[in-house]
This record gives sequence, structure tokens and C-alpha cells, in this order.
Amino acid sequence: MKALFFDKTPVYTTSYAKPVPAPNQSLVKILMAAICNTDREVMKGYKPGFTGILGHEFVGIVEESSDTALVGKRVVGELNAGCKTCLYCTTGREHHCTTRKVLGMDGKDGCFAEYMTIATDLLHIVPNDLPTEQAIFCEPLAAALEVVEQSHLRPSQEVALVGDGRLAYMIGQVIALQGTPLTVFGHSTQKLAMFAPFAKTSLQPTGSFEVVVEASGSPSGLETAIALTRSMGLLVLKSTYAGLTPLNTSELVVREITLRGSRCGPFVPALNLLQRGQITLPPIELFPLQEYEQAFASRAFKVGFKF
Amino acid sequence: MKALFFDKTPVYTTSYAKPVPAPNQSLVKILMAAICNTDREVMKGYKPGFTGILGHEFVGIVEESSDTALVGKRVVGELNAGCKTCLYCTTGREHHCTTRKVLGMDGKDGCFAEYMTIATDLLHIVPNDLPTEQAIFCEPLAAALEVVEQSHLRPSQEVALVGDGRLAYMIGQVIALQGTPLTVFGHSTQKLAMFAPFAKTSLQPTGSFEVVVEASGSPSGLETAIALTRSMGLLVLKSTYAGLTPLNTSELVVREITLRGSRCGPFVPALNLLQRGQITLPPIELFPLQEYEQAFASRAFKVGFKF
Repeated sequence: MKALFFDKTPVYTTSYAKPVPAPNQSLVKILMAAICNTDREVMKGYKPGFTGILGHEFVGIVEESSDTALVGKRVVGELNAGCKTCLYCTTGREHHCTTRKVLGMDGKDGCFAEYMTIATDLLHIVPNDLPTEQAIFCEPLAAALEVVEQSHLRPSQEVALVGDGRLAYMIGQVIALQGTPLTVFGHSTQKLAMFAPFAKTSLQPTGSFEVVVEASGSPSGLETAIALTRSMGLLVLKSTYAGLTPLNTSELVVREITLRGSRCGPFVPALNLLQRGQITLPPIELFPLQEYEQAFASRAFKVGFKF
Repeated sequence: MKALFFDKTPVYTTSYAKPVPAPNQSLVKILMAAICNTDREVMKGYKPGFTGILGHEFVGIVEESSDTALVGKRVVGELNAGCKTCLYCTTGREHHCTTRKVLGMDGKDGCFAEYMTIATDLLHIVPNDLPTEQAIFCEPLAAALEVVEQSHLRPSQEVALVGDGRLAYMIGQVIALQGTPLTVFGHSTQKLAMFAPFAKTSLQPTGSFEVVVEASGSPSGLETAIALTRSMGLLVLKSTYAGLTPLNTSELVVREITLRGSRCGPFVPALNLLQRGQITLPPIELFPLQEYEQAFASRAFKVGFKF
């Protein structure tokens, strides 16, 4: 089958072996797969040991499954397959299982291929009236929802969002759902314009906020975000990147700031929001898989592969 | 009056001007003052701009006061005097007022002197049956209580404490008050022995914990503490020190760790615990003020000055 194989660098192949599902898995024919910033980070060395097929944002059709009711259904799927027996898996934290396999990142081939296997219990059926070009945003929208899954954001508290990229755009909309006053700080006037319907926007980080979300994808965003966070306030970190960041931990102590890491999120509310049209989605620019170099080079807001 | 004046280095003097209280202040005759690790950090350059009298842990007698009911009373006092009008002062966060004056640290002479002035509303009367040698522990005990003031620690959740010093000893006892299983990780067998009545102790940091408190006072403690914190767990930071610490922020994001800075705490519950004898206190080694060099050089668990 066609696949984008990664071994320090991505290589397009038409002869990758079609995967065979294990007893608890499903075989999914990929309809659409999207590029996430994490894919670019993996390519830059964020997961040094990973060799295999990249990609974890997908919509597909189930061809074979341990749950026969899923066969023929259009699905999206979560990333993290846990061991089911450890402390994390048995306390509602399967996505933190230390021996988990992660689609396209760790121990498991991802979705930049014609077919992919996945643990059946990670799949979610896409509602019939939700187009594939919208369902493809389920995973990043779920990651945005994780901010409010973890922390109680009071609708009356002003929130600052640092970053004007793809993930920030999802997070901003999620935070604004309850009417929360939101200010977005970014570097691009063009990108910030997208946030204008639901947020104040600024190129200059100023002010102080009870809650700040750092989603710039850049180490320098952290310093900006700390400066914007009120003492005793909450700073949610969404950005991942390779390497160490110098941090003034004494400032966190003296100002009693809470810094909370935030990663993958819940798919069910994400699908609900998408189905109800409550999230504005940018168009996705689609390429055939063999044009992966153009795809990764594209500056479009959202880029993916169509099969 | 006698005072320990600090200007890059401490100097003992007998001719420091006795302070005159402002209309909202009290004049306190110091009975006992204790050395805190923060004093040593200030001497090492943690507060580069500070010149004046060090020290913020004290028990004294009120000689003059804007509240006449306090005159003649034995008191302890909080550190931070806010402006009373800013966002922090008007939202219950006076100790985070950005223009606050901090005893012995920032804009305000401290307690290593015969007399000190202090904002009257920062004073708390010491119960008659609480000896001065015990009341002197009020401020560090309040700082320990801040851990449970900020965060809900479930008594059933195992907690790890990194550090075996003075502040850790207070924090450990506070956490153990509700029966919480506690493990203390330290470097000194002798110090760890003090924790044995209420905690497991270990020289080797191992295991994983829902809640970890970092009170080692050293930058290397942070890395240890992160390694001990479970994914989706809480890491409370109590240590302050000068300089930047390299931090793998992506690990915080991927493991969804909450890192919470924690500083000064509430005096009322601290005085209650001390009066009720619920906290075991080490003996304090006392020196006259002029022997400050021996005092700062002492390796005793708690060291102070008696006037």
C-alpha cells in the first residue's frame, strides 16, 4: 500500500505491507489525514527513537474490526493505546500509560498511509451529517477541550491566549464558548484577524490575567505567558518542543503561579461541537500522499492528505 | 539601638536609629528573631537591591500601636504589607501586591534589631500559654500550611516530600495531620530520622506519587520532584533560589503535570496548631545579636537571636 515511511526523514513508498489487525484492533481505510505540528516536531527529532508511519489525525472507514458493528462506519480515533492493567490505565488515565503505544509517534504506525490498524476502543463513529473535512478537526479540537476538561475556567475571568496558530485557534474558540472575555496575543496580523469574531487581539503582550494559555509552540512563549499571568493565577501549557527551557522557578514560587501541562483531550464533546456547527473551521488544503514535500512546505492554516 | 544592618554584607551596630511607627503601624520590641533560609538567600544576592535590616521571623511585645488594645501584647507578624488599593489587595491577595513592602527583604527593615515597626493589621496576638520559643515557629509553619491552603490533598493519596530541612520538617508534619501517607526523600540520615514518627523516609528517590512537594531548597530537587510526580499529578514548589533552572516543559505538557508555586501562608491556623501542641518543634539555638557570625554559621536545625 501507499505510505509515508519515516526513518529520520520521510520517504514515500507504494509497497508498504498492509497491516493486519490484532484481535482487539480494527483495520481502518484512511479517507483523510491531517498534518499536526507534532508531526513536524517528530521530524525535527522530538521523538528520537521513532521509525514508522507518521500521522495521528485521520478520518477513515472501518474495514475489519473486533466490534463487527463498526464495520463500514466512518470513524475518528484517539492516539494513545494503553496496557489496560497499570495504575494509569485503571485510574482513567490510559493516555498516560507509561507503556502506551502512540499513533505515528511511539511504537505504532500512524495514518499517513492507505490503511492503519488501531485499538477498537479508541474509535469514535463520525455522525453521518458531519463532513469528513470537518471531522478531521476532531483530534485538535479535543486537545483544545482538554484545557477546560482539566481546569474550571470561570466565564467571568479574563483569559489570555499566547499564540495565533492552528491549535490556538481551536483553544480560543473553546474558551469563548461560555462567553469568557478572551485576549489573543500573536505575531501575525493576518492570523490574528481570524480570532477577531470571538476575542480581542494584540501583537504586544500586555496586561495581567487570572488564566493564561500558552499555545505559541515556541519556547519564548513561556516567558511571555508567565509575565501575563497574575500572581496566584493559572498558566496552562500546550506547547511541546524538543529541549530544555530556562525557567525562573523562584518567580513561580513567590508569585504562587500554577503551571499546568495539557495534552490530548476528549473526543465525544469535540464531535458534539463539530456536529452542532459551534466551531468555525478553516479550509483544509489537501494533497495526494506522494506530494508530501509540498504538503509539509505549505503555509496553509491546515494541511492534509486525501486518499 | 542594636541592629544587624545589611548592605551586601551584614554589619552589627549599636547605633541604628530606633524606628518611629507611622499612623497605621505598631512599634514592636523584639523578644526573639529566627534565621530563615531566605535570609541566607538574600545575603547570597537573591534580592539584589535590598539594603537594611534583615529578618522576618519574630516574636515581640507591642510598645506603641495604632490599635491601643495591642499595647503590651506579645505578637507575631506577617511579612507582606500591601497598598490596600490594587487588584491584589482588593481580592484577598495582599501578599501579592506588586508594590508591597516585605519585612527584611524589600523596602522595609526586618526584625534583626531591638525594635521594629510593622503594619498593625499584620500582627497576631500570641496565646498566653504558648512559649516564645514555640511561637517563633509561626511564620515557617504558616508557610507550610500554604500547601494545604492552596490545594486539596486527599488523606488517602500518598504524598512525597523532597527535602529534609527546616521547612520540609514543618510541611511534612502539616501533611501528616490528616493521616496522609507520606514519604520523605532527603540526603541526611540524621535529619531524616526526625521525620520517622510521621513518615517513611528514604535517601533514594523512587516511586510515583499523586502529590509531590519540593522543599529541598536546591535547583536539583526540581528534577527529582518531577520524576516522582505521577502523570496528571500535582507538584508543589516551595524552594526559592537565585537564577534560572533548565526545565523540560514538554514533559510537563505530555505528562499533564500541575506545578504550583507556594509561598507565605496563614498565621491563624499556625497559631492554633502551635497552641494545641500538634506540631513537634526542634529546639532553637539562640545567640545574642552581636554573635551573628556564629549564628549564621551554626548547623543547628533552627537558629535565632534572643534580645
